Amino acid sequence: MSTAWTSRYALRTKGITSSQIRELLKFTQRPGMISFGGGLPAPDVFPVQRFEEACRKVLSEQATLALQYGETEGYQPLRELIANNMARYGIKAKVENVLITSGSQQALDLIGKLFINRGDRVLLEAPTYLGALQAFNVYGAEYVSVPIDENGLRTDMLEEPLRSGPKFMYVLPNFQNPAGTTLSEVRRHELVLIADRYGIPIVEDDPYGQLRYEGEHLPSLVVLDRENLRRDDGYSIGNVIYLSTFSKTLAPGLRLGWIVAPPEVISKLTQLKQGADLHTSTFTQFVAYEVARDGFLDQHVKLIRKTYRERRDVMLQALKEFFPPAVAWTHPKGGLFLWVTLPDGLDMQAVFRSAIEQNVAFVPGDSFYANDGREGSRHMRLNFSNAAPEQIREGIRRLAAAVKSHLTGTTVRLKLPLEV
Amino acid sequence: MSTAWTSRYALRTKGITSSQIRELLKFTQRPGMISFGGGLPAPDVFPVQRFEEACRKVLSEQATLALQYGETEGYQPLRELIANNMARYGIKAKVENVLITSGSQQALDLIGKLFINRGDRVLLEAPTYLGALQAFNVYGAEYVSVPIDENGLRTDMLEEPLRSGPKFMYVLPNFQNPAGTTLSEVRRHELVLIADRYGIPIVEDDPYGQLRYEGEHLPSLVVLDRENLRRDDGYSIGNVIYLSTFSKTLAPGLRLGWIVAPPEVISKLTQLKQGADLHTSTFTQFVAYEVARDGFLDQHVKLIRKTYRERRDVMLQALKEFFPPAVAWTHPKGGLFLWVTLPDGLDMQAVFRSAIEQNVAFVPGDSFYANDGREGSRHMRLNFSNAAPEQIREGIRRLAAAVKSHLTGTTVRLKLPLEV
Repeated sequence: MSTAWTSRYALRTKGITSSQIRELLKFTQRPGMISFGGGLPAPDVFPVQRFEEACRKVLSEQATLALQYGETEGYQPLRELIANNMARYGIKAKVENVLITSGSQQALDLIGKLFINRGDRVLLEAPTYLGALQAFNVYGAEYVSVPIDENGLRTDMLEEPLRSGPKFMYVLPNFQNPAGTTLSEVRRHELVLIADRYGIPIVEDDPYGQLRYEGEHLPSLVVLDRENLRRDDGYSIGNVIYLSTFSKTLAPGLRLGWIVAPPEVISKLTQLKQGADLHTSTFTQFVAYEVARDGFLDQHVKLIRKTYRERRDVMLQALKEFFPPAVAWTHPKGGLFLWVTLPDGLDMQAVFRSAIEQNVAFVPGDSFYANDGREGSRHMRLNFSNAAPEQIREGIRRLAAAVKSHLTGTTVRLKLPLEV
Repeated sequence: MSTAWTSRYALRTKGITSSQIRELLKFTQRPGMISFGGGLPAPDVFPVQRFEEACRKVLSEQATLALQYGETEGYQPLRELIANNMARYGIKAKVENVLITSGSQQALDLIGKLFINRGDRVLLEAPTYLGALQAFNVYGAEYVSVPIDENGLRTDMLEEPLRSGPKFMYVLPNFQNPAGTTLSEVRRHELVLIADRYGIPIVEDDPYGQLRYEGEHLPSLVVLDRENLRRDDGYSIGNVIYLSTFSKTLAPGLRLGWIVAPPEVISKLTQLKQGADLHTSTFTQFVAYEVARDGFLDQHVKLIRKTYRERRDVMLQALKEFFPPAVAWTHPKGGLFLWVTLPDGLDMQAVFRSAIEQNVAFVPGDSFYANDGREGSRHMRLNFSNAAPEQIREGIRRLAAAVKSHLTGTTVRLKLPLEV
C-alpha cells in the first residue's frame, strides 16, 4: 500500500502477497481465451438438479435450523456422513475427529494460526500448493523445501530438513497440486515412520484423493500412521492432521471442507474457528448433506472421474502431438493438474505473454515455490478439468506454438529426464 | 490442552479462549429452558418462502456460476445492492469500498490480522462484544478499555487511553452488544474528531443499525468522518472502517457480512481473506442477492423491527413488574439485548446456577470485559429477540425469583443510578 493508511496506521504488510494465479485469472475472462490456469471443476458436472431438490427439502422441512446460527464444529449429520464416506477409503474417524471448515483453505489458515509463531519453520514439498503458502505466510512462517520427483516427496532427503525442527510437514500425497504426482506406497510408509521418529506432525492435504483415474487407491498417511502406532482408538495421539473438501466432488461454491485430527487438536482448532467466522454456513451444510446422502456422493464421483479422465487423456495426447521433444510433462493418475518442464534457458514470462497473445492461459511454475521462485522458472501448471475436450486440444496446440516461438533453432532439443 | 499434542508439538495455546456463551448455550438445549443467553434472531421472521424462490431461481438460471469458485471481493451484484442499501442510511460507498465477509466475525478476524502484531493495543468499550475479543486475542492484542454509560462510550475519557497509542478503536455505536446503549449524536461528533486528531482509526461495528424501535436514526461514524474531512471522493483517506451483516436482517445461517473501507484497506483485507477462505460461498451470496433485491430487504426489516420491538417491550414491562427495586437495566432503542445491573455483593455465578435451576438462561456480564472480567460481576446480558413474548414474560418471572433468592433480607434496596 502506497497511500495514507500504510504510512499513518502502520498496517501489517509483511506476509501479504497477492496470488499470481488470481491476477492471471483476469485474463481468462477474455472472449476466446482457453484457460488451463485456474483449478476450476467442470461446471457441467455440478449436480444441479440434486441441489434443487436439496434446497427445496431443507427449506420446507428444516428452515428454522438451516438459516439459524449453528455449532462451530459443523452440522452433526454432515460430520457423520463425512466420517462414513472416509471409512470407504480406509480412514476411520469418529464424528469428534471431524471439524467442518469454510473450504480447505480455512483449514490451512486455522492450522497456521495454531502452529506457526513468527519465524517457525514449515517443511514443504517443492513445488507445493500456492494457497498453503498464502495461508502460512501471514503467520510469519519460514520454509524448508524438499524436492519431489515422479514418485512424490523425496523421503530420502528428509533427514536434514527435519533436523532443523519444522513445526509440521505439509504434503499432498495424491495427484499433487501443482505437479500431478502421487506419493508412492513405499514412501508413504517411510514418511510416516520418519515423522514419528522426529515427533513432527504431518498435515496431509487430500482434496483430490477420490479423483483417481488409473491404478489402485493408496492408503492415506493418516491410515498408515495409525497402523504404525498400532492404536485402534482413533486419533488420540496420531501424528497426522488430514484435510479434504467437497470443492472437487460436489461444488466449490459451497466452501465446505473438513479437518480430521485427534480430539484435542480439533478442540483447539474449533476455538480458533469460532474467532475466525463463528461457524461455516449452516445453510450450505444442510444442503450439502441432502445432496451427498444416500450414496449420491459415491455415485457422483464416478461421473467426475469419467469426465476428468477423458480430459486428462485428451491433454496428454495433444501434448504428445504438438509439443517439441525437448519438453517433458508428468502423467497424473488423478486430480486436476499436470506439470510441464521446458528446456533450460527459456524466458517463462515471455512464453506466458506469447501464450496470452495466442488466447491460451496457464500458471508459470514460480508461483508454487516458497522463498525464491526461480526453481519454478522452467515449469508451467496446466489444469485439465475445466475446459471441454475439444478446447483442450486446441489450447495445447496454441500453447505449443507459443513455446516453439521461443525455442531458437540452436536450442539443444534433448529429451530431458522427467523433472517436477 | 493437557495431552500429547500440546507437549509434543508446542501448539500455540495463548490467546485461545473458549466462549463462555458457547458453553452456556449447551444448557439452552434442555427441554423447558427459556433462554435469554444467545444472540439468536427469531426464526419465525426468516423469510423462508423468499429463500425457496431465490434458490429455485439461482439454480435454474445461474447454477454454473453460483456453484463455482468466485471472486474474493464477493459477488458484484450483492456488493452493489449493499452499497445502495447503505446509501439509504447516509453511507455513500462505491462497490470497490465493499468486501463481502463470511459473517461479521470474519471481518473482525481480518482486521485483527491486518492491524495487530503481538503486544499492540486496541481501544475497546467496556463492556464490549465478546466475539471481537476472541478475534483479536489470537493476534496477541492488549486492551485499553473505556467505560460506557447510557449515552454510549465516554468520549470525555478518551484522551489518556489514546495517548497510549492503540492501533485502532473498536466501537458499537448502535444498540451495543451487550449493553443495548446507543452512542449519542454529540459523542459521535466528538469521537470522530478526536480519532482524527490522534490519527487512530475507528472500527465501527454496526450489526443492528437497521433495527431501531424508537427515535431517529443517528448518523454513522463513517458518515460523520467523511463530513468532517470535507471529502466527497468516498473512502480514500477516511478514518473509519465500517462493518455490518445480513445475520440480523436476513438470516445468520448464511454467514454473510461486509466491510466498508478505503480501497487500499479493502485491497489488503482482500488478500488476507484469500489466504483465509479464498472467498465467501458464492451460492449463499447469489441466494442472498435474490432474496434481498427489489426492495425486499427494506420491507422485511420493517417486520423484524415490529416483532423485536414488541418483545423488547414485553421484557421491559416484565422487568418492571417482577424485579426488585434494587435492580437496574438499560432501555435499548433497538438491537437484541439489554443489560441488567444487580446490587453490589451478589455472587453472579450463584445467581446463574439458580437461574439454570429455574430453567432460564442469561450470560453473566464478566464475559464482555477485556483483561479482568470482575467489572462485569454485577451484570447480566438478556436477549429479547429469540423467545416468544409469552416466554419472555415467564422467563423474567423465573429470573426475578432466582435473583431474589440471593438478595438477603438485609440488602439495602436502593435504586441504583443506571450503570452499564
